[in-house]
Amino acid sequence: MILKNTFAKTPPLGWNSYDYYDTTVNEAEVKANAEYMAKHLKSHGYNYVVVDIQWSDPDAGTDRTNYQYINFSHFNMDEYSRQLPAENRFPSSKNGAGFRPLADYIHSLGLKFGIHIMRGIPRYAAHTHMKIKGTDITADKIANPYSVSKWNPDMYGVDYQKPGAQEYYNSIFELYAQWGVDFVKVDDICNTNFYIDNPYSAEKEIEMIHKAILNSERDMVLSLSPGPAVIEKAWHLEKYANMWRITDDFWDNWDSLKDMFKRCEIWQNHVSTGCYPDCDMIPVGWLGKGFGQERYTNFTIDEQITLMTLWCIFRSPLMIGAELTKLDSQTLELLTNDEVLHLISNSHGAIQVESDNKHAIWFSRDINDNSCYLALFNLSEESQILEISLKDIGINSKVSPRDLWKHENLPPVEDVLIANIPSHGASLYKL
Amino acid sequence: MILKNTFAKTPPLGWNSYDYYDTTVNEAEVKANAEYMAKHLKSHGYNYVVVDIQWSDPDAGTDRTNYQYINFSHFNMDEYSRQLPAENRFPSSKNGAGFRPLADYIHSLGLKFGIHIMRGIPRYAAHTHMKIKGTDITADKIANPYSVSKWNPDMYGVDYQKPGAQEYYNSIFELYAQWGVDFVKVDDICNTNFYIDNPYSAEKEIEMIHKAILNSERDMVLSLSPGPAVIEKAWHLEKYANMWRITDDFWDNWDSLKDMFKRCEIWQNHVSTGCYPDCDMIPVGWLGKGFGQERYTNFTIDEQITLMTLWCIFRSPLMIGAELTKLDSQTLELLTNDEVLHLISNSHGAIQVESDNKHAIWFSRDINDNSCYLALFNLSEESQILEISLKDIGINSKVSPRDLWKHENLPPVEDVLIANIPSHGASLYKL
Amino acid sequence: MILKNTFAKTPPLGWNSYDYYDTTVNEAEVKANAEYMAKHLKSHGYNYVVVDIQWSDPDAGTDRTNYQYINFSHFNMDEYSRQLPAENRFPSSKNGAGFRPLADYIHSLGLKFGIHIMRGIPRYAAHTHMKIKGTDITADKIANPYSVSKWNPDMYGVDYQKPGAQEYYNSIFELYAQWGVDFVKVDDICNTNFYIDNPYSAEKEIEMIHKAILNSERDMVLSLSPGPAVIEKAWHLEKYANMWRITDDFWDNWDSLKDMFKRCEIWQNHVSTGCYPDCDMIPVGWLGKGFGQERYTNFTIDEQITLMTLWCIFRSPLMIGAELTKLDSQTLELLTNDEVLHLISNSHGAIQVESDNKHAIWFSRDINDNSCYLALFNLSEESQILEISLKDIGINSKVSPRDLWKHENLPPVEDVLIANIPSHGASLYKL
Amino acid sequence: MILKNTFAKTPPLGWNSYDYYDTTVNEAEVKANAEYMAKHLKSHGYNYVVVDIQWSDPDAGTDRTNYQYINFSHFNMDEYSRQLPAENRFPSSKNGAGFRPLADYIHSLGLKFGIHIMRGIPRYAAHTHMKIKGTDITADKIANPYSVSKWNPDMYGVDYQKPGAQEYYNSIFELYAQWGVDFVKVDDICNTNFYIDNPYSAEKEIEMIHKAILNSERDMVLSLSPGPAVIEKAWHLEKYANMWRITDDFWDNWDSLKDMFKRCEIWQNHVSTGCYPDCDMIPVGWLGKGFGQERYTNFTIDEQITLMTLWCIFRSPLMIGAELTKLDSQTLELLTNDEVLHLISNSHGAIQVESDNKHAIWFSRDINDNSCYLALFNLSEESQILEISLKDIGINSKVSPRDLWKHENLPPVEDVLIANIPSHGASLYKL
Repeated sequence: MILKNTFAKTPPLGWNSYDYYDTTVNEAEVKANAEYMAKHLKSHGYNYVVVDIQWSDPDAGTDRTNYQYINFSHFNMDEYSRQLPAENRFPSSKNGAGFRPLADYIHSLGLKFGIHIMRGIPRYAAHTHMKIKGTDITADKIANPYSVSKWNPDMYGVDYQKPGAQEYYNSIFELYAQWGVDFVKVDDICNTNFYIDNPYSAEKEIEMIHKAILNSERDMVLSLSPGPAVIEKAWHLEKYANMWRITDDFWDNWDSLKDMFKRCEIWQNHVSTGCYPDCDMIPVGWLGKGFGQERYTNFTIDEQITLMTLWCIFRSPLMIGAELTKLDSQTLELLTNDEVLHLISNSHGAIQVESDNKHAIWFSRDINDNSCYLALFNLSEESQILEISLKDIGINSKVSPRDLWKHENLPPVEDVLIANIPSHGASLYKL
Repeated sequence: MILKNTFAKTPPLGWNSYDYYDTTVNEAEVKANAEYMAKHLKSHGYNYVVVDIQWSDPDAGTDRTNYQYINFSHFNMDEYSRQLPAENRFPSSKNGAGFRPLADYIHSLGLKFGIHIMRGIPRYAAHTHMKIKGTDITADKIANPYSVSKWNPDMYGVDYQKPGAQEYYNSIFELYAQWGVDFVKVDDICNTNFYIDNPYSAEKEIEMIHKAILNSERDMVLSLSPGPAVIEKAWHLEKYANMWRITDDFWDNWDSLKDMFKRCEIWQNHVSTGCYPDCDMIPVGWLGKGFGQERYTNFTIDEQITLMTLWCIFRSPLMIGAELTKLDSQTLELLTNDEVLHLISNSHGAIQVESDNKHAIWFSRDINDNSCYLALFNLSEESQILEISLKDIGINSKVSPRDLWKHENLPPVEDVLIANIPSHGASLYKL
Repeated sequence: MILKNTFAKTPPLGWNSYDYYDTTVNEAEVKANAEYMAKHLKSHGYNYVVVDIQWSDPDAGTDRTNYQYINFSHFNMDEYSRQLPAENRFPSSKNGAGFRPLADYIHSLGLKFGIHIMRGIPRYAAHTHMKIKGTDITADKIANPYSVSKWNPDMYGVDYQKPGAQEYYNSIFELYAQWGVDFVKVDDICNTNFYIDNPYSAEKEIEMIHKAILNSERDMVLSLSPGPAVIEKAWHLEKYANMWRITDDFWDNWDSLKDMFKRCEIWQNHVSTGCYPDCDMIPVGWLGKGFGQERYTNFTIDEQITLMTLWCIFRSPLMIGAELTKLDSQTLELLTNDEVLHLISNSHGAIQVESDNKHAIWFSRDINDNSCYLALFNLSEESQILEISLKDIGINSKVSPRDLWKHENLPPVEDVLIANIPSHGASLYKL
Repeated sequence: MILKNTFAKTPPLGWNSYDYYDTTVNEAEVKANAEYMAKHLKSHGYNYVVVDIQWSDPDAGTDRTNYQYINFSHFNMDEYSRQLPAENRFPSSKNGAGFRPLADYIHSLGLKFGIHIMRGIPRYAAHTHMKIKGTDITADKIANPYSVSKWNPDMYGVDYQKPGAQEYYNSIFELYAQWGVDFVKVDDICNTNFYIDNPYSAEKEIEMIHKAILNSERDMVLSLSPGPAVIEKAWHLEKYANMWRITDDFWDNWDSLKDMFKRCEIWQNHVSTGCYPDCDMIPVGWLGKGFGQERYTNFTIDEQITLMTLWCIFRSPLMIGAELTKLDSQTLELLTNDEVLHLISNSHGAIQVESDNKHAIWFSRDINDNSCYLALFNLSEESQILEISLKDIGINSKVSPRDLWKHENLPPVEDVLIANIPSHGASLYKL
């Protein structure tokens, strides 16, 4: 019945262009990152290459002084109100080829290809009464002039009650299927404000998109952004999407990382096959060039360990934000620790055991055997000795912990496991 | 310094096309109402004739089944992003004449001419990069794609920080001055939600409009809609506007009328020369044709007396909503009781003396002599005897009340004034 | 680890005194209802007898004209700030016996005994500096003067940070264990407002109560009221409680029943062993005597079928609100349909398949075999034919539905199941 | 009619014990401050000596580690639920004398005496069913158990609908009249939260208190705290009170002082005879001893000039927070600049002319002659040259400014007044 859960059986791993390129990524850059992934990351499970926002705007990124997105820009569209890649940025897309040649190349590397879209239909199409494919309806008849994003000027929401609305969504996903798209990140669709305040329901747009994917007959992972997603709608997200952001855009500062524990706390009972609450991209390595300020991540190595430990035990999708071609060896090692990555696809039932302003403890079990995982986090500003009574996590016998970050077996423990953890750091044990 | 207060020394009285015609009024209809006003109402103080919303849309009102306003309509504009009257509806506006011929006609009747506009610049102008008069800036550079009305699809707010923003407003008010406009009702600009939630400040648009009026060098009354206006911004409204709506759209139902007492309560200390909190149009007589359902007002005659009594003692502007050419004699009499209308221009300092769910008492003084006014309202569902101790309103001597609705002198009263008032009715006395 | 889930393996079924008696129930009345349950309901799975609010107040219900709860009442307490049954209402509680004799009697009938308490410590104890058992601390040191219920005047919340706080909760649950209490309904502890607005965290009081139950070493079901519980805290409720109200007090009107579909929608993925979102008592039969207006339920029989169908497929606890000794045969039949009640303990994974303002469809599976359940609800004001494609619920073969309310086998169905359902009614099928 | 406006014709000036003593002030300390005032401040207009919160609690201030106010404290009361001064702190109050001897002493110095009270009736009186003077009603019958302060644990609000409610307030103000009280600061009664969220209307308590003052037949200034007062209720405050706080507690940090400009902006049109929006005490000189940390004000001298300039042109009441006996000469000079203080009683109609994040300009007129006042504030972090066009404030002729802080006449100015103002500083000119 719910086909979507059959083709994303474990959380997707990959790379996304946003953290480094913002709105500016081009074909050569995408290819270079894909090639790096094929060579260095694919064997560890990473396989999605995702082109993020504004790929249809030829001028994207040219006026960062005034705005991130260009107001009232005239981006590339076909006659059916459908956005096409900007040809100056994606030369292979010329002559109506769209993203097909790029997708083909990425597939040839054994990887999968993803794109970002904004919910809705281009505003320009509505104002100039453009066509909807396969209908005699025009864009102005399905666009909702009151349904506008709070942060991007391009689109109007589509009113599901109007004839032609589903046909529009079908038409764009048919195009993506023709291109060979494997993953679609739909934006401006799952955050709290939109859901709660807005009478022009994002819910219905999610359902139309889900239906359009089924109609396209191609497996495409459906990823919803931005967050925070609304927990009241957990059931709806679980029914129609594969992953949904549980935070606003996540960047490399400690307060945001610490805050993620609150978000994972709320969503801990909502991770299941095909359904992944999403902690957002991993802002490590080199970032921010497209924003006009290339920089190395602000996260310390201990904070990066905390990030990877939480994402992996919680089983968030893992989308690397770094420019891959510039990855240093320490970051590469962090991202490719197979003992840690193992949890993403082989653990389940993660719960928060304890949590306060200074520490957190998470616990999960392996799906294959009796082993279980214990993550200890030091959220305070000083190094800290954390203790956890094994009885409190249901373990009544002696256990031999293995430190998955250090690849070390520790001496057997009875009753209480004790760990000395640096400030902002974490330990992850297999028991 | 504050010139605006010099040309609206008392609350404006007149007629507005909205309650009867909605978006559909045409030139012949405006003229017919103006002619009626000149003949029957002018001598009682009414003199503004105001053309309300959508006068630039040739198709307005043609698709009421789907919406009040036509989404993405292509209405009449000049090359400078300025809306012009739809020529099919206002034939005299052809050949670039605009509203000038109609204004001239209305002036010839000894009346004043007003128009409605929406805050902002047409969305279509922004998307097609139209010009701003007197600059080399285009509409897309000053329009704010996030500043959209919650109920009308036509405009984007103008970002006051952008070069060309003030010039745009100057250009439209120069046009209105050329036309001979005396009164501008600016919409989507003073309600609570817009002020409080929206970072794209309506405040600044009010200031730009005020400045544009000064720049035009023509006296134009500035009326702001819709309400409820925000009391925290009372000082700002008093500084820049002549009148501002203190309610959402007001219609002919008792609950709304009863609710107006709460609104007048809040605003009672904010009525002064040139500054008029506005209770909205008076929905009496025949209404609603443009909405597709012509009907006679739902207000009983007692409720109409309550309405007129409150509006007059509070000193709200009085804008008749009825189709004037269909006014029956009873309604005409109600609207032209000179003893009652006298308060609009000759009383001051109205305060609420008492108020609860069942009654209200208001009191004010005449600006010319020692007389004062007392209004008693029965807000309950049954007839009621109301009493007011004269001492409580600062009167320590015997007084002779005159009933201003009945044109009768009552016997002298000492200590306590007593009145038997029908359900939903009111009495108004001069003391 | 989580012992609470071991002694409430299926949703509790029973009777609660509130809907009929409000604050006034006495010992004889409790016994009479228990005796009825033992005779007529026990064999169908009902076994909890719960004494609801104000059992320690000798004067409860004597001044209904002024309030439901008596302000600043001097109810029965021991020297340790612990409430005791009012002896005039529960004669067997004299001489320090407390609820032990009544619990013994109920146990002798093969039933279980439950009581209601308010979160916190009696205000009177705080103001008069009474003792906390087993400590040298007084009530004023642990009571929080700012943590007061919005609807009951008796208690102050307990500040978990204060020495003596846990000891107080331990002391009251030790007393309940001595009495033989099997079920505790804790009130003023799980509704939205309290959790979100209040800095004096109900969360911590829930944790103290959970700990006090463990400390008492007696299995006591923990039920939290009132609702609506906060979905953000689902994980916390699942960790520490057995059942929690997902609505405000539920009564016999259609709008509230219809609204329950929205609440079950939100909570559908949160029903598991030992964890039961609670739709509140079942207001059927005779109700309201303690409120001063005895009446027969306002629910039609179709609405009652809708109620029972939703509660059973969703797996809410079932607590009868009616006075049992007055149950008519139709209501008794409704409450004891074993084919329907079977779902409470033998189905799982209920999800909402469809839902709008006019209908809802729910689906679940049996835990014992391949059979599954389908509930169709007509929420509209007219009778309605509902259709459900079997493929949409993952059934691809011919099925033979059994109507669980009518106890009838229907002809085999392929592809689409069709049912004609009366307004406000429901059908429940086993497939 | 509105007698309250006859005995507070200009904003009150004086001293309040809170900023230095918090809850701990005693008789000797009050007298010492009064003596200083009589000697050094009285001739400049200061004459109110106000004893702030917790004067009836003998233990106030003894347990600052745990709380500011002692939970469930047993403070001094008479048999009629009325608080009396703690005799250990106010020895002259013994034998039922109350505050009479202290008031007499202060009156003997040519000064006036004020006290603080909390809205409502002592919680202890309600729980122990104490009497209400002149009635056979007990405190539990008029106290509202749900109406509790968010920050002080002593009182319950009084329910105006209950017999005995007005009698209670009458009884306490009769007592204050007997004592010779001239000023009552009523707390927990005018802030936003209380007014808006709370169904137990503070409005009605204000009206009861106003009525009790009239009933007492003694002129007592009515001051309401804390803020921020609600602008929607401006009309109500103006009708029943003399002064009301427009901010939460104000302390000596720049952000709060800068924020005051926003508050004065909102309230600028609400200052009139007998009606004074109140910017709160002036935290200069030595502060904080009662809070456990005696300290010299954090305000720089420029910030203090900004404070005094704003308070004086806005015409806030001026209540000194400093310990007077420790006043240094610079602070004394600041507080006693007669040219500046002159505005408090002799200017009117102050309005904000300009305001943004970096500066503010205020303007008012003298009530005696044609002179006017101009205050320029530098709110930025750097010194700044501010300019104001005289035409913009309605002055079309040459003027000769006098600098009221420097006591200097400046050269005549035409068109534009220019001032160089230090960061966080202000200039005040008489024109």
